Amino acid sequence: MLYELLSCLDDAIAIFVALQSPEIEVIGLTTIFGNVHTTLSTRNALHLLEIAGRTDIPVAEGSHVTIIRICSWHGWTRTKTFLHPKESLLNRLQLNFSFSSKLVFTLKVTVVALGPLTNIALAIQLDPEFFKKVGQIVVLGGAFAVNGNVSPAAEANIFKDPTAADIVFTSGADVLAVGLNITHQSNGKFAQYLSKLLDVYFDYHHTAYNMRGVFLHDPTALLAAVNPSLITYSEGVVRVQTVGITKGLTIFYNKQTRVVEVTEWSGKPSVKVAVTVDAPKVIELVMARLVNS
Amino acid sequence: MLYELLSCLDDAIAIFVALQSPEIEVIGLTTIFGNVHTTLSTRNALHLLEIAGRTDIPVAEGSHVTIIRICSWHGWTRTKTFLHPKESLLNRLQLNFSFSSKLVFTLKVTVVALGPLTNIALAIQLDPEFFKKVGQIVVLGGAFAVNGNVSPAAEANIFKDPTAADIVFTSGADVLAVGLNITHQSNGKFAQYLSKLLDVYFDYHHTAYNMRGVFLHDPTALLAAVNPSLITYSEGVVRVQTVGITKGLTIFYNKQTRVVEVTEWSGKPSVKVAVTVDAPKVIELVMARLVNS
Repeated sequence: MLYELLSCLDDAIAIFVALQSPEIEVIGLTTIFGNVHTTLSTRNALHLLEIAGRTDIPVAEGSHVTIIRICSWHGWTRTKTFLHPKESLLNRLQLNFSFSSKLVFTLKVTVVALGPLTNIALAIQLDPEFFKKVGQIVVLGGAFAVNGNVSPAAEANIFKDPTAADIVFTSGADVLAVGLNITHQSNGKFAQYLSKLLDVYFDYHHTAYNMRGVFLHDPTALLAAVNPSLITYSEGVVRVQTVGITKGLTIFYNKQTRVVEVTEWSGKPSVKVAVTVDAPKVIELVMARLVNS
Repeated sequence: MLYELLSCLDDAIAIFVALQSPEIEVIGLTTIFGNVHTTLSTRNALHLLEIAGRTDIPVAEGSHVTIIRICSWHGWTRTKTFLHPKESLLNRLQLNFSFSSKLVFTLKVTVVALGPLTNIALAIQLDPEFFKKVGQIVVLGGAFAVNGNVSPAAEANIFKDPTAADIVFTSGADVLAVGLNITHQSNGKFAQYLSKLLDVYFDYHHTAYNMRGVFLHDPTALLAAVNPSLITYSEGVVRVQTVGITKGLTIFYNKQTRVVEVTEWSGKPSVKVAVTVDAPKVIELVMARLVNS
């Protein structure tokens, strides 16, 4: 099981930090595809909670496929922002997608999304009022004015379901995006610390998993959800390119540059995009909580 | 005629500056659609040379449509980087597109492209060796890590023929892109100076043409061609998104962020992208050359 956990090591660290944070009540974990398939992701989540001695926390399995595939199966169409499920399908869908159903009925909680946004997009489809009911949605994803990691244009979590990401960003929910531009600000130092630390947790081989410089990403998103003073952000409209060579690209429009034409950004709700992070403080918090666990 | 000239005021200023620059020999003007149709653009160019007393300089009319439309007319297909004209068409095309033909036979000159890149892309199609024969191609266009001006994603010159831009950027030629990120660095001050200055040249009404803050764009590209010390640049691969909501977007990949996958940027030739500009010096040069003319 160790290998599988390591395949989503960033997530694991973020979840461990959450479990060690007195200001966070983890009310559930949900799973999604990404580095591994959803099924394996669910097994990893269950295993992680066993290691942490917190099997009281429920795990809900999320979607196995992108929202576009679900759309094609169910005959949904996308008009502008929203997908429109046929009325008759709605009840069945609520049964099918356990995670999304749960989200619909879980009010004013913070959702920390460390993977592709399929589940959350589904929740938005299932309940048009979802954006009012949920608390902040912290999205770990996007690459704002920096290169991506899947392609020069795209960050992996957004790339893996760009349509879902576009639905979430334009849903009207209180979204905070923590993208690669944030991670870049402090990874090196944190990776050094963590390499040492991980020897304590796992039989960790730095080179084997080729993961240097990616560790701070998920914990930062998590901590930003708890302590907004760790970051500064800018507000504006984010749209996601869903096709072509820049598929998965996030374009943030801060409304300061005047665009004369009506564009796909016009009239869309604003989200928050993190622009700076107090990296030393994030490192300190993550380390303290991991070491003291 | 005044109105028409003003419709491409940036270009006019850049051309006036070129004519007043001892280190530049203007060997010809070519025209393209943009703010106005190509036909009107040609009339403007001829008129501008009349005003400047330089009717000795030839003007070649360029393409009236985007390269994709030309492709569809002539049955070209685009495979990866290059469009492949049917062999039999090649001669006819060389007759048809006077500008592109000229470019093909004009060796080692610097091309300063102040509009959509259709003509240059055509020249590249007509002569696979073009990229070796031409000197530097200074492209006024793109928005690198900043919002565009046509949409939050795209700058106007690239947007108007994104396929042509992608062909030029990946052609292997010595390309220097001067994008909106450069213009943003000093527009305010320059616009102030220029508003005053223009009263001398034209019966200029600032509000009527709604052009504040765009004047430095074209002259900067021109001067960068002459005096590389005015800018700093970064080298990497630029690809252009040709479809979707971010159509016209330029994505620069500086090869410092490691992308594991093979992407549309992999193996493509590098170009130069301007990252900083000595704005006070550019303003000084432009002003000096306009005032002394």
